[in-house]
Amino acid sequence: MTTRPGFTVFLTGLSGAGKSTIADILIEQLEAAGRPVSTLDGDIVREMLSSELTFTRADRDLNIRRIGWVAGEITKHGGAVVVAAIAPYDGAREEARALVDRHGAFVLVYVATPLAVTEKRDVKGLYARARSGEITQFTGVSDVYEVPSAPDLVVDGSTGSPAEAAQQILDHLTERRLLPDRS
Amino acid sequence: MTTRPGFTVFLTGLSGAGKSTIADILIEQLEAAGRPVSTLDGDIVREMLSSELTFTRADRDLNIRRIGWVAGEITKHGGAVVVAAIAPYDGAREEARALVDRHGAFVLVYVATPLAVTEKRDVKGLYARARSGEITQFTGVSDVYEVPSAPDLVVDGSTGSPAEAAQQILDHLTERRLLPDRS
Repeated sequence: MTTRPGFTVFLTGLSGAGKSTIADILIEQLEAAGRPVSTLDGDIVREMLSSELTFTRADRDLNIRRIGWVAGEITKHGGAVVVAAIAPYDGAREEARALVDRHGAFVLVYVATPLAVTEKRDVKGLYARARSGEITQFTGVSDVYEVPSAPDLVVDGSTGSPAEAAQQILDHLTERRLLPDRS
Repeated sequence: MTTRPGFTVFLTGLSGAGKSTIADILIEQLEAAGRPVSTLDGDIVREMLSSELTFTRADRDLNIRRIGWVAGEITKHGGAVVVAAIAPYDGAREEARALVDRHGAFVLVYVATPLAVTEKRDVKGLYARARSGEITQFTGVSDVYEVPSAPDLVVDGSTGSPAEAAQQILDHLTERRLLPDRS
């Protein structure tokens, strides 16, 4: 019995960069093409896997390691995974890559929306609360975001639309033969 | 493209009941038949998913919920999962069942080795440490084990061999058409 190639798309970027919106469109398109997807969105993961973790560097790293391990196990069975997480540290992202790489493809997508844009949007009002000091260890304000040193793809969350970004990712997956070519 | 039916085999029982030994044989047989397996053994899970959890009832339940959620996500993609965990509470086991059931088959296997036998074996020396009070909240000694109210299969870890128990599980999976019939 043939098995489809497993892969994990890992979207990283600032809060409000557009990761979840892009992920939602990407997941919808993959599922419409008959491909089930496991969604490891920051909020779901914090609820299901990491409920007692804080936002210290050690706990953030542990959170990303858990995501990487679970994504790897799903990828192993030919599954498709879409991760959307701030994941501010390069080391943890590369650790996640190593946990998936053993089992299938890992696609690191940097959602490169500048801080000026994400803070201006401030959809959830989190930046205002971070600036006032109500929220501490907030990535981009009171905590670092390390720009990915080796992303597989960079999409722009400020100029292009989320649908365009999702399409770029689908094209990339097709180029890497992780999805069947429909052209 | 055809997809294999996903399933999760969940082995529950006392420490030293023989869960991991049976799981190892089962996994070896499944992999020999070309079926990749994700192993969610108690030790691996405590390291990768639940490193900061204790052995209170709340934390044990959370641990089993995490296992159930991850097993469900893997099962969703047609994967095979083998869980080996003490999982002393019926409620948590049934919660794990619900998390997997949405995506595929859940097979609860009760490894019914009596306490007198597991304590006499005491392979890891844990029962002695529990009796002396060095380890607290130890299932069977200072903490409860609820016998499963609705196991799909009961295997005897005291009279039969681990290989026989693994074969019983394989037969059960075949009967439920989760594995191809080779007879």
